Formats: sequence, C-alpha cells, structure tokens
Amino acid sequence: MSNEQLDALREQLDDVNMKLLDLINERARLVQDIGQVKSKSGQKRFDPVRERNMLDMIAENNEGPFETSTLQHLFKQIFQASLELQEDDNRKALLV
Amino acid sequence: MSNEQLDALREQLDDVNMKLLDLINERARLVQDIGQVKSKSGQKRFDPVRERNMLDMIAENNEGPFETSTLQHLFKQIFQASLELQEDDNRKALLV
Repeated sequence: MSNEQLDALREQLDDVNMKLLDLINERARLVQDIGQVKSKSGQKRFDPVRERNMLDMIAENNEGPFETSTLQHLFKQIFQASLELQEDDNRKALLV
Repeated sequence: MSNEQLDALREQLDDVNMKLLDLINERARLVQDIGQVKSKSGQKRFDPVRERNMLDMIAENNEGPFETSTLQHLFKQIFQASLELQEDDNRKALLV
C-alpha cells in the first residue's frame, strides 16, 4: 500500500517538477525581453530596487510550508542565473 | 513607449514569480507527504537514485533558454531546501 502511495506522490512530484522547469524557462525568456528593452533605452540590467520589490512580494504572498527566507534565497538564485543569462546574451551579441 | 513595454513585461514577470512561489510550495507539501509515507515504512528520506532520476528528467525536457546545468543547479537548491523542511518536520514531531 505505502509503495503505491509513494509512486502516486512521486508521479505528482514529477509533474510539478516539469511545470517548474517550464515556468523557470518562461521567466528567463521574459528577463531576456526586459534586458533587450532596457539595453535599447540605455538602462542598467541590474535594478536592486526592483529586486527588493520582487522579494517583498514573495514575503507578502507566501502561504508556506517553506519559510519566506528559504523562498527568498531560492528566488535570489533564480535572479542571479537570469542576470548571467543576460550577460551571455550580451557577450554573444558583441561577437556577432 | 519603452517604459510601457517594460511595465507590461514586469507585470508578466510578477505573475510568473507568483506562479513559481505557489508551485515551489506545492512541491514542498508533496515532499512532506512523501516524507511521512517513507517514515512510516522506515525508508530513508534522501534517495540519491531518485534525485539523479529527477535531474535526468530536467535534462531531457529542457527547451531553454537556461542551460541544463543551470537548471539542475537551481533544482538541487530546491531539493536541499525540501530535505531541510522534512528535517524540521521531524524535529517538531520529536518535540511533541
């Protein structure tokens, strides 16, 4: 019985993982678009006020079970990876 | 014009952030459920084969723009946070 339960839960977890994968990549595409708009108007990619604002929204909307500090840590890693992706895009653009 | 574009993209990004927040917490609840089932049948929480399998699924299903290595790094952070959450649950259970 418990193995069936475990298999069913793992199937649900795989499904959530795939949704997360798609959403993280969707987020990356949006950040790339934002980077392009900013670059055209000469704005810097990294905006600490905007980042603070996004972290605050996470705090306000967190219904758990993760602690807000854990979620903010995870999101900071996503922000960092997104910035690095924009840097890669810029490097490639310079090489063209 | 570009500021309107930027605002619209940021609104979409906020929306994706909130979906990610919900999904990461949904994932955490599933991991808690899995932890309970495993604990009842005396299985260890951490299963390196299962983790490898999840990382492989990410590699197989990644359509970019993030590199697979970046995504696997992000997911490992989520796995780690989930394990810590289960440890917190266990500690609380011991204190009851």
